[in-house]
Amino acid sequence: MAKFVTSGGAAEDGKKPDPTILRSKEEMRSWSRACRQDGKTVALVPTMGYLHDGHLSLVRCAATRGDKVVVSVYVNEGQFAPGEDLDVYPRDPKGDLAKLAGLCDAIFMPEALYSSDDSHQTWIEAQHLQQPLCGGSRPIFFRGVATVVAKLFNIVEPDIAVFGKKDYQQWLIVRRMVQDLDFPVEVVGMPLLREEDGLAMSSRNVRLSAEDRTGALSISRGLTKMKDAVQQGAKDAITLRQQLVDEISLSGGDVDYVEVVDARDLQTVKTIEQDVVVAVAARYGGVGGVRLIDNMEMSP
Amino acid sequence: MAKFVTSGGAAEDGKKPDPTILRSKEEMRSWSRACRQDGKTVALVPTMGYLHDGHLSLVRCAATRGDKVVVSVYVNEGQFAPGEDLDVYPRDPKGDLAKLAGLCDAIFMPEALYSSDDSHQTWIEAQHLQQPLCGGSRPIFFRGVATVVAKLFNIVEPDIAVFGKKDYQQWLIVRRMVQDLDFPVEVVGMPLLREEDGLAMSSRNVRLSAEDRTGALSISRGLTKMKDAVQQGAKDAITLRQQLVDEISLSGGDVDYVEVVDARDLQTVKTIEQDVVVAVAARYGGVGGVRLIDNMEMSP
Repeated sequence: MAKFVTSGGAAEDGKKPDPTILRSKEEMRSWSRACRQDGKTVALVPTMGYLHDGHLSLVRCAATRGDKVVVSVYVNEGQFAPGEDLDVYPRDPKGDLAKLAGLCDAIFMPEALYSSDDSHQTWIEAQHLQQPLCGGSRPIFFRGVATVVAKLFNIVEPDIAVFGKKDYQQWLIVRRMVQDLDFPVEVVGMPLLREEDGLAMSSRNVRLSAEDRTGALSISRGLTKMKDAVQQGAKDAITLRQQLVDEISLSGGDVDYVEVVDARDLQTVKTIEQDVVVAVAARYGGVGGVRLIDNMEMSP
Repeated sequence: MAKFVTSGGAAEDGKKPDPTILRSKEEMRSWSRACRQDGKTVALVPTMGYLHDGHLSLVRCAATRGDKVVVSVYVNEGQFAPGEDLDVYPRDPKGDLAKLAGLCDAIFMPEALYSSDDSHQTWIEAQHLQQPLCGGSRPIFFRGVATVVAKLFNIVEPDIAVFGKKDYQQWLIVRRMVQDLDFPVEVVGMPLLREEDGLAMSSRNVRLSAEDRTGALSISRGLTKMKDAVQQGAKDAITLRQQLVDEISLSGGDVDYVEVVDARDLQTVKTIEQDVVVAVAARYGGVGGVRLIDNMEMSP
């Protein structure tokens, strides 16, 4: 895949020509149908923009899975509750277009995806998977995610869709939705990427102060320690969890949750005897600060 | 459309050759994609089987709207609560196949549409439209309907889908879902059909005793009287509604609801100054009896 990383390569280096920019649902659907008519498969990477290397790794993966790659860039208001950070969510459409040059075939950058008259009322809910973890403090978050993903699937009609496992719960919910609603889409999950210092890549990282950024390293540091302990035979999830909570709190993080959960159904685990995911959400910078999520898969 | 009504006509009379019977999701999707690849549009008529002339009128309508017509026959367990009439819902797959001969191109008759391990957990909910009318006594009904329609849309991938306005609330919810989730499907609503004596056609009518059948005629009789009154200037929905409730109750019907609602958003109307729908659900035959629904659109 390295050949896709260079920004100055020519087409014969695996670089794609400049992507088509599509602004309306109708344009997007026509483009995609024309691809299928040509016998090409379409891979979609849904994003909220402000792209970082984590996103770009998903786009590169998509290019290995589908003949044509579409990246959608849309900050989904449907997953933000009033008072959350919709207004300050970082945006950089120009930068996003520049970063995607040569990596994808089309960029879907719509003005709006929901009815303009506030009449939208249809929501997709995952009964069990949406309750724990981020569902606790953000009760409408996952219905908003599932709904916008369904909308994108219906507009883009992709054969393949690539999601990052940084949003582990989101990835499980989308996989479940695809199975339960029979969407004809193959869902691919990619490992999360970290900055060199270990911080999970996120569009929100730019909003961290230098001090909070240092503090936030406690999350990946704690997770790594815990993974080592589990590999060495530690099974007591309650104790391990508390150690991680303490490490994050001491670094100045306001813990939203730290949970050791079954990797398939997200149910809390007390004794680690199966594949688990340890999921973290913590806020840095107090009220109005930056909420970071991270997770690590671990096996006994 | 009359040429479609004959059962003995040849292909040049508009009669279609014997339909293909499809049992699996994969077969269904391949069939549909082959049609689209051929440049043909596909019209879907979703049914729960035990077909009557009301259904067949939808199928004939579909044949005028799409190049190829698919009828799905599936009793959707997702819309029945425990204790409802799933087990006694009438079924007659052989009879259905016979009735559909010459009218459609494919019949989708799957064994099962939900995961066999009871793991299904993704449901589509219409926040406001699913609350009134049938939503009152059947709280999981419409999420079951919306969910199975989404599944069918994802499996059949139709260009057009035809629904009966006998299930008026269902029709509004499906239309709303298509708009809110961007399904690439045109939804067509057809007027309800009545037996010669006025009873709204329903698969459940066969379960009525002779006496209850006579009593049940009060529903259409009362609705027709009310429509006449509204056309002659009556506006007081509360009085008109009570007259209809009394007429049905006197005939032996156990009224679940009688409501005068706005035709677009199903909100209760006290003074009729816009297009309304008068919707009725009533049970005949006591506990375990037959629940009938009916409705009539009226304009001041």
